[in-house]
Parts: sequence; C-alpha cells; structure tokens
Amino acid sequence: MKQYNFLIVLSMTLISSLISAQNEPVKIIEDFKASTVNQPGQEYPQVNSQGYARFQIKAPDAKSVVVSLGLGGAKGGTELSKAENGVWTGTTAGPMDEGFHYYHVTIDGGVFNDPGALNFYGSTRWESGIEIPAHDQDFYALKNVPHGNVQQILFPSNSTNTSRRAYVYTPPSYAKEQSKRFPVLYLQHGWGEDETAWSNQGRVNLIMDNLIVEGKIKPFIIVMTYGMTNEVKWGGMASFKIEPFQTVLVDELIPYVDANFRTLANQENRAMAGLSMGGMETKTITLNKPDVFSHYALLSGGTYKPEDIKDKSKVKLVFLSCGSKERPDGVKNAVIGLKEAGFNAVSYVSEGTGHEFQTWRRSFKELAPLLFLNKK
Amino acid sequence: MKQYNFLIVLSMTLISSLISAQNEPVKIIEDFKASTVNQPGQEYPQVNSQGYARFQIKAPDAKSVVVSLGLGGAKGGTELSKAENGVWTGTTAGPMDEGFHYYHVTIDGGVFNDPGALNFYGSTRWESGIEIPAHDQDFYALKNVPHGNVQQILFPSNSTNTSRRAYVYTPPSYAKEQSKRFPVLYLQHGWGEDETAWSNQGRVNLIMDNLIVEGKIKPFIIVMTYGMTNEVKWGGMASFKIEPFQTVLVDELIPYVDANFRTLANQENRAMAGLSMGGMETKTITLNKPDVFSHYALLSGGTYKPEDIKDKSKVKLVFLSCGSKERPDGVKNAVIGLKEAGFNAVSYVSEGTGHEFQTWRRSFKELAPLLFLNKK
Repeated sequence: MKQYNFLIVLSMTLISSLISAQNEPVKIIEDFKASTVNQPGQEYPQVNSQGYARFQIKAPDAKSVVVSLGLGGAKGGTELSKAENGVWTGTTAGPMDEGFHYYHVTIDGGVFNDPGALNFYGSTRWESGIEIPAHDQDFYALKNVPHGNVQQILFPSNSTNTSRRAYVYTPPSYAKEQSKRFPVLYLQHGWGEDETAWSNQGRVNLIMDNLIVEGKIKPFIIVMTYGMTNEVKWGGMASFKIEPFQTVLVDELIPYVDANFRTLANQENRAMAGLSMGGMETKTITLNKPDVFSHYALLSGGTYKPEDIKDKSKVKLVFLSCGSKERPDGVKNAVIGLKEAGFNAVSYVSEGTGHEFQTWRRSFKELAPLLFLNKK
Repeated sequence: MKQYNFLIVLSMTLISSLISAQNEPVKIIEDFKASTVNQPGQEYPQVNSQGYARFQIKAPDAKSVVVSLGLGGAKGGTELSKAENGVWTGTTAGPMDEGFHYYHVTIDGGVFNDPGALNFYGSTRWESGIEIPAHDQDFYALKNVPHGNVQQILFPSNSTNTSRRAYVYTPPSYAKEQSKRFPVLYLQHGWGEDETAWSNQGRVNLIMDNLIVEGKIKPFIIVMTYGMTNEVKWGGMASFKIEPFQTVLVDELIPYVDANFRTLANQENRAMAGLSMGGMETKTITLNKPDVFSHYALLSGGTYKPEDIKDKSKVKLVFLSCGSKERPDGVKNAVIGLKEAGFNAVSYVSEGTGHEFQTWRRSFKELAPLLFLNKK
C-alpha cells in the first residue's frame, strides 16, 4: 500500500497558517456582514472584507466559549469574551483564507455547533460552516441562469446489504433533450465527509451551471456517493482497504446509474475524481479498473507516476491539483513526469489556499473544461 | 382572514401531555438503543421500547444542561445530571409519543443542538431530531424495493427576484417509462419548517416507494417548496398574506415543473396538500385557484366548509386529518358536513399522536391512495 499524506499536509497547512499569522498586526476594518452560509435570519457569524471572522454566541452561564476556527487564539481557536448581557463575542486573531471553513464551538469543555451557522458534514460529524468571501466567488455564485438538478438516488447494494445513497447532478439540458446521452463523472469527497459535501460545501452544481451557460464545458452528469464504505477512523488510513468501496462503485452504482440515467455508458465517457482521501480512492480504483474510467483527477489527493499506469492508450486525461499552501511542487513535478512519458496531464495550483474546499472548487472549475473533449 | 388555530393546538397538545405524564409512575425498561436519526457512529440519544428517551452530552464545565424534549421535567424539559467524567445524562420523565420529535439543548442558558443527533429544519432553525420507534414504522422504513428519486431544483422566480429551491419526488417508474406522464401533488411543510421537511422528517419518498411496490397507489410526482415566502414570525400569523407564496407556487413553480418534468399538466391531475400552516396555505390557494387544483388535503391544518367551495364539480377530493391529541371532532364533523353537501370527503385521525410528524406521515399514507383515482 502506498503512503498517502493528506493528513500530514492538512496538519502542516494549519501550522504554517498559525506561524504566518503571528507576524501580521493589522487594523480590523469594521465592515462585518453575516456569513452567506448562516441559518435563515441569523446575523452571526460575520466576516469582514479582510477575511476576519467574528462570532457571537449566547450562553449566559457558561465559563468558557472557544471557536475552533481561528489564528493565534488559545488552543488554536478564537476565545470569546462574555458581555453583561450573557452574549459571548470574539474575532479571529487574523484573516482567514478565502472560501469555506468548517468549525465548531467548545462550550465548557463540550463540543457543539454554532446555532447561527448552517451545518456541513465533515470530520465524521455535522459541523458549522462559514464562508470567507473570495475574490473569485462569482464562479460558484447562484445566478439567474438555467440550473441543473441534484437528485438523491437510493441504489441497491448487495455487497453491503442495504440501499445506499448517492447524489446525481444532471445538467439543465438533461430534461429538455430527451434523446441525448451524457458522459459521467464520479466525484468523491474527502475523509470524514460524505456524499453531500460536493454540492453543499463544494457548490459543484452551481459551478457546473455557470460553466455550461458560459459555453466553457461539455455538459456531463456528476455522481457523488459515500466513499467510507469500511469505516475509517483517524489514524486508521494505513489499514484502509479499497475493495468494499470499489465493489459498491464499480459493480453496483455504475450499473444502476447507466440503467436509470441517459448516460454514455462506456470507458471513454466515464471519469473519476476525488479530493483528499477521495483522491486516494480515485487513484487506486482507476489503476485497478482501466477499462472503466478514462479521465483521472486527484484534488489534493496524491499523484500518479507514469509507471503506475499500465496502458497509456486508455487514459485520456490525468489532472492533479492542490492548494499553494499544500505541496504544489509535488503536483507540478508529477505532471512534468507524466507529460514527458506522453500522457495528457494537467496540473493546477490554487493560490493562497490550503487543504480546504476553496482549493477543490477552483480545481473542479479547472478540471471540468478538460473532461470528455475527445468525444463528439 | 380566517382564524387558524394550529399554534394554539400545538400548545394544548404539549400541556395535555405534561398533565398526563404526572399520573404514570412506570418502571423504566433498560433496553435503550441509539435513535435511528443519530449522526453516524453516535450512541446517544437513545430510546427504549416504552418510548422513553435518554440523552448523554459531554460538557465537563457546564453548570446546567437541559433537553427541551421531555415530560414533567424542569422548564418542560429533561434536566441532565453530571457524572464525574464530565458527561451529563438524563432520561425523560415519561414515554414520548411515537414518531419524530424536534428538540434542542440548553447549556448554561444558551440554545444548542445535541451533537449526537441529526438536524432537521423546524422552528426556523436546524433542530436536533429523535425517533421514537412506532408500532407502524414499517410503512416509512427504508426497504429493498425500487426507489424513487428526490431532486433539488432551482427554479426562476421573478416575483422574488431569485432562484428558489424545491424538491421533486419522482416515482421509480419515472426514469424507466420515458413516454409516460404523471399527476403532481404540491405538498407544503408547516410553520418554521422548509422544503426539506417532508422528505427528511416526513420520509415521504420512502412512504411513496413502499405504497407503490405494494400496488396501493397510482404513482405520482410530489413537489415541495418553501412556503414562508413572506417571513412569518411567531405571533405574526394574523398578518400573513397568501399572495407572495401563491404567486411563486402557481405562476412560477407549476409552469417550471410542467415544462421540465413529464407531468399531466391539468387541473384534474394536480393536487395540493399541506400540514399545519401549509394546510392554511393549501386551503386559501385551492379556494383562490379552483382551476389549478382538483384534490385538496389539510393535515392538522384546518377544515373546509361546503360553502367555502364555489364549484363542487371541480373538486375531486377533500381530505382532512389530524392527530387524536389535536381536535379530531373538528375534522370529523367537517367531513360529515362536506359529505352531506355531496363532496367526496375523507377524514383521518392518527391515534395517540399530536401536532407532530407521525400524524402527518400517517395522514400522507392514508391520503396517497385516494389521489388521482379518476384518471386512467
């Protein structure tokens, strides 16, 4: 089994963020607004134009309220202070990276979510989420354009003896062009996340809608399912076995999707991509099943070496990406090697982001226009 | 504007539950199991075979942890007690009604969710949820049968100047029978809930899948969207205006659904139903728009009088229901009056339940087989 480093990378990203924050005494601009992923009507958490986040939580009798998100705060988070009205308030010690972040609140030693924020599944639990407005947020904004649908399917899985859930994005033209068939991307979440991550945190349906209306991609279907088929604990990745998930994906989900959606049901029109742990799964399954997928993409999820791939003629695209705060040289050098060996390989590095969803939103935006170009 | 009483009924249900619990000293059976709507891997909250709920929450330094769900406890809830390991535990003072309940946790005066439970949108926030196993839970169980899909659509709304979200259930045969068209039920949530409620809390997709495989209903499409178009606050119902939502539903959503799904796009094949506040909306809109809907259903959401309905020939079904702990006589008497006036009217009372989702799951199961019978 190869060594997969995304947990290490995640830790390094956090540590380097903490160190850099120490050196930046900045005046905080008081233009805070409610985060765009707050619960309806909730004014907090807030973010300002510099990327600072401010929290406000009511707990009149609490001794301590600490938000896990933050830079340079105690315990790596942001300690809130109580006002006389029983409301705790605090601002991050530094600006946060652009994009989406998970967080939670520790109240008197217990871990809870911020009642003001929407919840997103990460770290094997529903966590609070916050959006730091990004300079490029337009590409994943909800716009007045034709929208594709995201549908929950429940597909039979004999290997796990249950009905399993997946989400399927169909492009706006899917309902209109009843005789047309579409290529399919199988898109995996990361460790501790689930099949909701790419559309909730990743906004992949909106990225697709926007790319399609701009004419930048060939419309395709996206299928997202749960990849932690055998339960994976922190530190247990060394013993991770791909077979249970590979069986669900290749032997159960793909046939179901091909039977129930108007797909182009062949290798040339089938791609697999994944972020972080989903990248590890993508790498292993694409190499195990060269006749199933033709386009491979690892987002902050490792690299391929030319010698990993047995039959070059079957691979139409290798896409590798990560954030600039991860290990961009690894991704770039791997693509140089793949290109030298004659592969259609592309690298992408997201500037100023780490092992988080902004990296993966941007990576997806770069990846999508490269998929299924070989087919008419 | 008519008087709508569901907030009063809700309060009465809670009060009568509290009173009855005082008189029942019962020995608690120690067969507690994790609630079926817990977060993955979470052992608490638990429920036992009598319907008691037990909570366990870690908050070592907290002074007070109170769960809002409960009977006879302080502040109408269940006060938890702290053990030496910093974990708070408590059991409801009496058995809960069968089915789904919302709840939250008050920690040192602040309102949070139970980290062990999944969240469901109710009371205008994402609340914790718990399932008390019901004697009839089989009808909404996830089974190894063909499953319909639940898809998120984003439809353009000029009147509110945004893309609005709806969920659409399509039956298992929808994808297979590409030339077939289906009737449509527009199904509304209650006050403080949203378009996720009927499939999350209500499990309406599973109820449909099970009824279809048993041959008990004609397959139809269900469309669920957000009904609190003009923001409604507690106590603000008297000033509720139907027009903004009616415009979204009738002038924007229905045309979008008819254009993008294979519907039978006529009055005879279009039904509207709603629970609680959604019943009020259903009543008002069906009476305002007799040429749009032919089947009307109010679930714990009021009644029709014969004189409310101007053209009897346009109404194929009036269905009224509630829980036995609400006001069943109102529902029954209204149906007697409607029948005497020559309407096809049906009443249903859910035994042993109040103004909660178990009443509405059962009501839906009774309603579905009565819909669209007049069409081949």
